[in-house]
Amino acid sequence: MKKVAVILGGCGTRDGSEINETVTLLLALDQHGVKYQCFAPNKNQYQVINHVTGEVVNEERNMMVEAARIVRGEILPLTEFNVNDYDGLAIPGGAGIANNLFTYFIDGMKMTVLPEVKDAIIAVNQQNKPIAAMCIAPVLLANVLNDITITLGSDECGPAKDILEMGAHHQATKNGEVTSDLKNKIFTTPCFMLDATLKDIYAGAYNMVEAFAEAL
Amino acid sequence: MKKVAVILGGCGTRDGSEINETVTLLLALDQHGVKYQCFAPNKNQYQVINHVTGEVVNEERNMMVEAARIVRGEILPLTEFNVNDYDGLAIPGGAGIANNLFTYFIDGMKMTVLPEVKDAIIAVNQQNKPIAAMCIAPVLLANVLNDITITLGSDECGPAKDILEMGAHHQATKNGEVTSDLKNKIFTTPCFMLDATLKDIYAGAYNMVEAFAEAL
Repeated sequence: MKKVAVILGGCGTRDGSEINETVTLLLALDQHGVKYQCFAPNKNQYQVINHVTGEVVNEERNMMVEAARIVRGEILPLTEFNVNDYDGLAIPGGAGIANNLFTYFIDGMKMTVLPEVKDAIIAVNQQNKPIAAMCIAPVLLANVLNDITITLGSDECGPAKDILEMGAHHQATKNGEVTSDLKNKIFTTPCFMLDATLKDIYAGAYNMVEAFAEAL
Repeated sequence: MKKVAVILGGCGTRDGSEINETVTLLLALDQHGVKYQCFAPNKNQYQVINHVTGEVVNEERNMMVEAARIVRGEILPLTEFNVNDYDGLAIPGGAGIANNLFTYFIDGMKMTVLPEVKDAIIAVNQQNKPIAAMCIAPVLLANVLNDITITLGSDECGPAKDILEMGAHHQATKNGEVTSDLKNKIFTTPCFMLDATLKDIYAGAYNMVEAFAEAL
């Protein structure tokens, strides 16, 4: 049975990992007979946001402790990730991870990536193992890896333009569609980069995992 | 298009609503063409639990503000629920809701129910509209309503025994199965009352919503 690592960074779209993308990703992995272990940086989030009002609140929350809510406690610190134990890597999206795991929403093109996140991506890619990413997470792959093809939805401006400058290529997609870069084994789907409901998010996760699982 | 209300009470199985049950419920509603509006009490949770260590932490969190993380902010205070605007009601589980929405895990047979939760259940039932509940949430229905048949999984001890004393009837179920009380329009599925993985949770949610949607 194949086993993949999943990187999370909090719990909730505004300041952490997008919950619906995470659950449908893990569901699709389970449906395809792929085991998974979730990881997160054992570090504080960039910020905490009230998801009713959208306001930043004066609190500190830990990315791993919060992400553990989604996966019923089954999570490890990302520093414990060993590439030899896993057949691939998957990263759900969420605006929060573009502050927590990498700083695209803070620094734009000058973004930095948490060392343990960068190390994991590079290690998996160097072993020619597949990587799947949803929503805004493909920006992270575009920044860390070279000459890959990804999707960020149908809008060719904003992030989809920025990743060209990072040396990546963009493929426009609609709800549920997947961009498969078979040469580099990168599988991406737009999710909430588009106007979408849950059945669209699930379709994207399912189709992405189908392609990803074939490459494991 | 039919529209149902969904009652949440926090975000995370130990101190709030079970996230995976909530997402698969909402996904299944969307897949069946049923619209939904989520509600939660605008009140503090009973407690906050670190989902890595299982320890209670000295923090206060609001049920509605936290549940908003799951549904991307689309949530209303339960006091604003008007039964005439909805065709049915659904309640996902989670150990946390048996402290937050009702006090079964604190008080056992002497449990109480938050007034706005009790009022919503009774109002929906009195209009002969269907109610769906997952995991431990059927205990809440057993306590509030009379002479209903529900499932809490395959174990006939513990909660499944207690609900007999509350005047309800228990039907043993396995993963993905649904107990349909057609007379009272109550639809329940065991989810994490059993040893289950995500594909089991989704199967239960999907099958429950299928029966529930037919009764709308």
